[in-house]
Amino acid sequence: MGNRTGRYTIQLENKPSILGCGSVAGEKEGQGPIGERFDRVYKDDTLGQKSWEKAEGKMQAEALGYALSKSGKAKEDIDVVFAGDLLNQCVSSSYGLMEYNLPFLGLYGACSTMAQALALAAIFVDAGCAGLAAASTSSHFCAAERQYRFPLEYGAQRTPSSQWTVTGAGAAVIGGNQPGRPYVSRVCFGKITDLGVTDINNMGAAMAPAAAETIMAFLKDTNTSVSDYDLITTGDLGSVGSSLLRTLLEQEGVNVGTKLADCGELIFSRELQQVHAGGSGAGCSAVVICSYILDKLTDGSLQKVLFVGTGALMSPTSVQQGENIPGIAHLVEFGRC
Amino acid sequence: MGNRTGRYTIQLENKPSILGCGSVAGEKEGQGPIGERFDRVYKDDTLGQKSWEKAEGKMQAEALGYALSKSGKAKEDIDVVFAGDLLNQCVSSSYGLMEYNLPFLGLYGACSTMAQALALAAIFVDAGCAGLAAASTSSHFCAAERQYRFPLEYGAQRTPSSQWTVTGAGAAVIGGNQPGRPYVSRVCFGKITDLGVTDINNMGAAMAPAAAETIMAFLKDTNTSVSDYDLITTGDLGSVGSSLLRTLLEQEGVNVGTKLADCGELIFSRELQQVHAGGSGAGCSAVVICSYILDKLTDGSLQKVLFVGTGALMSPTSVQQGENIPGIAHLVEFGRC
Repeated sequence: MGNRTGRYTIQLENKPSILGCGSVAGEKEGQGPIGERFDRVYKDDTLGQKSWEKAEGKMQAEALGYALSKSGKAKEDIDVVFAGDLLNQCVSSSYGLMEYNLPFLGLYGACSTMAQALALAAIFVDAGCAGLAAASTSSHFCAAERQYRFPLEYGAQRTPSSQWTVTGAGAAVIGGNQPGRPYVSRVCFGKITDLGVTDINNMGAAMAPAAAETIMAFLKDTNTSVSDYDLITTGDLGSVGSSLLRTLLEQEGVNVGTKLADCGELIFSRELQQVHAGGSGAGCSAVVICSYILDKLTDGSLQKVLFVGTGALMSPTSVQQGENIPGIAHLVEFGRC
Repeated sequence: MGNRTGRYTIQLENKPSILGCGSVAGEKEGQGPIGERFDRVYKDDTLGQKSWEKAEGKMQAEALGYALSKSGKAKEDIDVVFAGDLLNQCVSSSYGLMEYNLPFLGLYGACSTMAQALALAAIFVDAGCAGLAAASTSSHFCAAERQYRFPLEYGAQRTPSSQWTVTGAGAAVIGGNQPGRPYVSRVCFGKITDLGVTDINNMGAAMAPAAAETIMAFLKDTNTSVSDYDLITTGDLGSVGSSLLRTLLEQEGVNVGTKLADCGELIFSRELQQVHAGGSGAGCSAVVICSYILDKLTDGSLQKVLFVGTGALMSPTSVQQGENIPGIAHLVEFGRC
């Protein structure tokens, strides 16, 4: 049964395990520094579908397929799926995962959705509400660009602080604790933070304060410090947001040193790939966590990791109406037996 | 601790109570058959805000305010808020509830979102993951029309099977079991159902199969029948969808007789108000459940009620791309000590 620790943190007594995870991504992501770790890299980012939205849904279905197969479970063993994405009405999740014919709970946390999904799936397993639960999110560069910014054909210039939406999906299957597998031990859900950022091309700055707040709340609740963790992985602040987070934490007396990494920085090479401030999108952290990070937790080269999913909760309409861009961050603590 | 009953149903051992609920709505909704039960009816559906989207967010904040004040709790007592709406990226929930400064989990289940939010809030309380949790959803006729259909100024004709998006918000505060208060005893999350409906003006038909499937799964899991309940309230199938649901259940050998009601039919008078097939929108069932239904559970005139939130998981983009409209339904069982 879940229990609260401090004001904001939920402790999972049974430490549900990640039994399997899957990651699929586009060609550009496959050419990045961790591309070899993905279960599948698509040469054709339409995946043979008639729209990018359909292609994104198909990626979620495939990522969940890899997660299931690696967990050694059948789809009928899953009791509930938590999923979300960036598209209006989260259609890539619902259309993409429909074929699984499983109880489905749609989430919207922008780029923080994978952290939210993993946390909810782990809580359901820990509380006995599910024997097996899945978490899945995605994003697609082409679908996101035309929805949030401009049609690709327009050839718009990108600003240096802008991030590149990852084409990819990640999924994890969570069940009861199994020795040798990474587990979820604590989670911390964040509050909406609005520090007045209005630049749609600088989402990192909008999300960094939320990440700082959630990390500080968690460290205080659990009476732990940065030295207790091998890595604190945000997803996805990019280079601008990461540097701001570092400063914000320093102001609170917390020096993250080399312990801070960001999924948006891990997935692309800023030197070799034209991505400006790094990757973003609900698929970015999902792909990185469900390959690089959980791989390292499985092989033991990482033992204790905080995943801090960060999201910017605006819409194109709210931005056009002159509203600020509020941020949110949810934290998932991974450990290893 | 939550436990599973049958394949799909989750049993809440501690029966978390609805400690307070709030409902606010627009003028047209206030003139309907249950309008007098709402906590507040707005003469001006802008609520003095500069956009309908902002007005919708403000409604959520006010509905949660009423729920909190009736529960006798302070906002700081709430550990987590589950909220969602129909707008792209769920902005009325995030912007509207930001002022509460509470851990926030965004949901997207279209018009089923209130059932999803209530179920998750009840599970969190039952599992000890929250001492107090809130559920909140909304919709706004003007914001929804321009996003999903046409600008209001266009004066488009409505088809007889179309539903009228409710301007309103409902919120509930859920905590540990308190005698004399309605409680949540079981929940059942639904699967995505696609029977090939493509008519955006006939959402009831798209959602009725999902409602039938979830109701049948729940009755089977719990070994109960319609006679065990005072009311089965769907939200929102409207008249076309309700009649279809009745037929689908009859085909399964289940006769709902006078036990079936629909939030979309309860909120408006089809004779006196030009709403065609009835009300809809994530705010519709939220307003009806958080006033009429929970009032009757509180005063004892209803003892056991199934609330079946139904949603159509399409987006304007998916419809334009010729995709079917998949439906989903989540069930919450209310009881009373």
